[in-house]
Amino acid sequence: MPATLAANDYGKCAVRLVKVVRDGARHHLHDLTVDIRCEGDFAAAHIAGDNSAVLPTDTMKNTVYALGRQHDVDPPDAFAAVVAAHLLGASAAARTVTVEIAQHAWTRLAVGGRPCDTAFEHGSAEVRVASATASRGEAPAAAAGLRELVVLRSAGSAFSGFPRDRYTTLKETRDRIFATAVSARWLYEGTPKDFNSAFESARNALTSTFATSPSESVQHTLYAMGDAALAACPEMTEIRLSLPNKHHLLVDLTPFGLDNPNEIFVATTEPYGLIEATLRRA
Amino acid sequence: MPATLAANDYGKCAVRLVKVVRDGARHHLHDLTVDIRCEGDFAAAHIAGDNSAVLPTDTMKNTVYALGRQHDVDPPDAFAAVVAAHLLGASAAARTVTVEIAQHAWTRLAVGGRPCDTAFEHGSAEVRVASATASRGEAPAAAAGLRELVVLRSAGSAFSGFPRDRYTTLKETRDRIFATAVSARWLYEGTPKDFNSAFESARNALTSTFATSPSESVQHTLYAMGDAALAACPEMTEIRLSLPNKHHLLVDLTPFGLDNPNEIFVATTEPYGLIEATLRRA
Amino acid sequence: MPATLAANDYGKCAVRLVKVVRDGARHHLHDLTVDIRCEGDFAAAHIAGDNSAVLPTDTMKNTVYALGRQHDVDPPDAFAAVVAAHLLGASAAARTVTVEIAQHAWTRLAVGGRPCDTAFEHGSAEVRVASATASRGEAPAAAAGLRELVVLRSAGSAFSGFPRDRYTTLKETRDRIFATAVSARWLYEGTPKDFNSAFESARNALTSTFATSPSESVQHTLYAMGDAALAACPEMTEIRLSLPNKHHLLVDLTPFGLDNPNEIFVATTEPYGLIEATLRRA
Amino acid sequence: MPATLAANDYGKCAVRLVKVVRDGARHHLHDLTVDIRCEGDFAAAHIAGDNSAVLPTDTMKNTVYALGRQHDVDPPDAFAAVVAAHLLGASAAARTVTVEIAQHAWTRLAVGGRPCDTAFEHGSAEVRVASATASRGEAPAAAAGLRELVVLRSAGSAFSGFPRDRYTTLKETRDRIFATAVSARWLYEGTPKDFNSAFESARNALTSTFATSPSESVQHTLYAMGDAALAACPEMTEIRLSLPNKHHLLVDLTPFGLDNPNEIFVATTEPYGLIEATLRRA
Repeated sequence: MPATLAANDYGKCAVRLVKVVRDGARHHLHDLTVDIRCEGDFAAAHIAGDNSAVLPTDTMKNTVYALGRQHDVDPPDAFAAVVAAHLLGASAAARTVTVEIAQHAWTRLAVGGRPCDTAFEHGSAEVRVASATASRGEAPAAAAGLRELVVLRSAGSAFSGFPRDRYTTLKETRDRIFATAVSARWLYEGTPKDFNSAFESARNALTSTFATSPSESVQHTLYAMGDAALAACPEMTEIRLSLPNKHHLLVDLTPFGLDNPNEIFVATTEPYGLIEATLRRA
Repeated sequence: MPATLAANDYGKCAVRLVKVVRDGARHHLHDLTVDIRCEGDFAAAHIAGDNSAVLPTDTMKNTVYALGRQHDVDPPDAFAAVVAAHLLGASAAARTVTVEIAQHAWTRLAVGGRPCDTAFEHGSAEVRVASATASRGEAPAAAAGLRELVVLRSAGSAFSGFPRDRYTTLKETRDRIFATAVSARWLYEGTPKDFNSAFESARNALTSTFATSPSESVQHTLYAMGDAALAACPEMTEIRLSLPNKHHLLVDLTPFGLDNPNEIFVATTEPYGLIEATLRRA
Repeated sequence: MPATLAANDYGKCAVRLVKVVRDGARHHLHDLTVDIRCEGDFAAAHIAGDNSAVLPTDTMKNTVYALGRQHDVDPPDAFAAVVAAHLLGASAAARTVTVEIAQHAWTRLAVGGRPCDTAFEHGSAEVRVASATASRGEAPAAAAGLRELVVLRSAGSAFSGFPRDRYTTLKETRDRIFATAVSARWLYEGTPKDFNSAFESARNALTSTFATSPSESVQHTLYAMGDAALAACPEMTEIRLSLPNKHHLLVDLTPFGLDNPNEIFVATTEPYGLIEATLRRA
Repeated sequence: MPATLAANDYGKCAVRLVKVVRDGARHHLHDLTVDIRCEGDFAAAHIAGDNSAVLPTDTMKNTVYALGRQHDVDPPDAFAAVVAAHLLGASAAARTVTVEIAQHAWTRLAVGGRPCDTAFEHGSAEVRVASATASRGEAPAAAAGLRELVVLRSAGSAFSGFPRDRYTTLKETRDRIFATAVSARWLYEGTPKDFNSAFESARNALTSTFATSPSESVQHTLYAMGDAALAACPEMTEIRLSLPNKHHLLVDLTPFGLDNPNEIFVATTEPYGLIEATLRRA
């Protein structure tokens, strides 16, 4: 038997939890997808087929629903911490339990110009992410972020001054469309007092900077966004940003006797540039 | 050769067109996906491999971009009509050309509490659909609709009084979550004066009725929605609605000693109910 | 109330049924997705919220599982007929019940060069489709087909001799890659004696003809495929084919001082041509 | 400016390359998706908007096509190494270039019972992965793997002997369906003499062990699979396996007066268990 067991983990993913909280006639809708991951001493299960330490992932799923009934699920960060702490207690073999929650966006439907108390419309594909880690003998750790925040700017974005080799055909441009699907993930120092306002500060810094910061490249904007998020959210210690460049190509209309003053583009999905970086508080 | 050629068509699908219209410093973003379909006398291509009547689908794609430069693309209904009429002229063999446009939603990013002139955030998966048909010797025809409008109501929805057989286990309920992804498609009598306001009237009737109409079943709500849309939009002659029932199942918490007063649900994707109907102006 | 209820239907979609049939130590795996659709007199549900005629879609789901235990599910066409006939009996208001089954492909895993009795590997995305319709007072009707059969030929495919207009830039070619995802759907006269061999005859005619028939266009190949299927499968009365043109574009390597003798292509997904036609037995 | 730039990288993803190699009348089809990632000193681009070190990702794309014309793309591992080495040379600021290739499966279409020379059918969703890393002043490194290998076994799989808590409802079982989508990624010591046979040895060990190893849990099978792969492929030093548990739930037919002797299952997608581990050569 040549193999040594190194890092290993297990858990339940994509636990879908929808909770309706009734504040009199006004309902609040919470739509979450929960992922759970346990690390610890599970070697006997792998090597000897001994499951005595393996809390079933089905139990993890049940735990999410049972705790969802007994605890607030807003902010998701606090609920993630509740689930992580419970599962660390429930699994003697676990050293670390990580619970990551994706919160799906819904807004109230308008009826007669006013937001309805009990009807909702799904928002964009953007999800807010809340992550809690419970480790035996250590303070809990919190992380947060967002995914699939699709944004586009039509001014102030350039890409020029880059090196050229024999396979370079790209034209320099001082005016292009810059579109991306922002993924961001950041760590908190300790536990923020108000998870929702910490998230909103970070998100607002990211979007405002994307919209207005002069952009010489995706890298240039990524750094400005991360820098602004760190400045806006004092609890944040580190942020990782991943910005796919969703290329919008200027269509060549000259074969048809037409100019194209940065007006007509084709949106493409493949291939795409991908720019990623981690920024830390200096 | 046993085969007779019956109905046939061809065209180009998924032509992605993004147009940036500049109103001074304020930019407007139009993000469209265009599908084109031609019907006519194309038997020689099928049977004899004779392409002399087959305008290439690549030309259809070029046409979208070239006409996009020369014409407004808002409302999409009008642009669809321009493309359809042009292609009917360009293809002598075509009897009918249908152009269907899906308009993707973007909203302005907020910067300092105000909408930005040149930066945008992608909206939900909902698309507005505009369809124009040009037929030789006939008046143009217009249709419209929407897809992937995902909505949920947490009050006023029941399902009871249904028949039971030996395979029926469903419990009756007077209070359930009702979630769906609305697809609607309607026909216009002639050409509406204002495509955008006709669309908004129809959409507003659909969402308001979904939110507030007492619901005994998906069918009951579907009919009320279609009825309201016909009432709100006088140019509409017929509407077809397709409402998948995105089931939210109440979680049984009794094994854990907990009640569940319509609070904790699991959102499921498979299987799903599907209710479809066409309503016509009486 | 301006609306008249026209065509309407309802049912359950995406019922996932996996059945393991044990022939001694040798297991057979059947992986099906079942869609059910009922048409009939359901106006009271729509207009008055009266569900007394609405057999729940949840019951339809249960019916699939219960009948799956009591009947063979292979061939899927026969099982579809069983479910359709049962549901027509179970729903007094239904005039027509259609059951459509998608059969997912699995092959046996090889162990030591021999197919394993109890372990399987998922096949391609292709699904075989079997459809049965039961209507009150009429003979049952059968249809079949396939979807997502992705095929490519690298020889014998041309596209030339097409008309050109001011927006045409496409070059003529006598040698191109032709790739598509075949969707086919055909009707049977009565009930074939052997559904599996009828399907295999049709599928084999489609793929052999795609591979070898000289191709002047997608249309040319589509017609040859449909014609061959009708010839190979005497029970087939009509076939509809839908062939998206999954364009593989020749890469221009001349900027790099290289030729490209039909060797290096970029596979694209958007936009795509779409060619559709119905062929009937003459 | 509070931010320090830490780890960062950029590159081009999803470069789709299809190469047709002609061996007389017999064609060979190579269908690849290439991802490129560069790490190095790109701080000036992030912080100062200085692109003088940023080889455009568009150039990376062109490089893939140009090198694809000049070099064999089979085995993909060797082609990945060619592209990585070239790009390390082309980008003075890069310290490390990683090229990861996903190879898509096609098989020859059968015509008259014989494999066709020039027509192909797409295989399953499984992709073979080949990864090469070129680092300045270091030996090249090779990794490989596979993704989306969907397999199922209907015998010899159990899950029992696990701990129970107040939220545990799962029943013990000695006979269940075990289905998963294998992701595997392994490292090579140096460069294997024959990449294709190394891959085949590893894959065959994974599938044979999945099929036949007595399974007390997903963990138990995962370890056995990794152990077998290390034994079968001497060049492999480490393997990471990720096995989502694609749950097939036994349907309760007792409400209908029927038993269910492990015969009728519902295939589910959410939630799913996820078991991951790394094994190293002892």
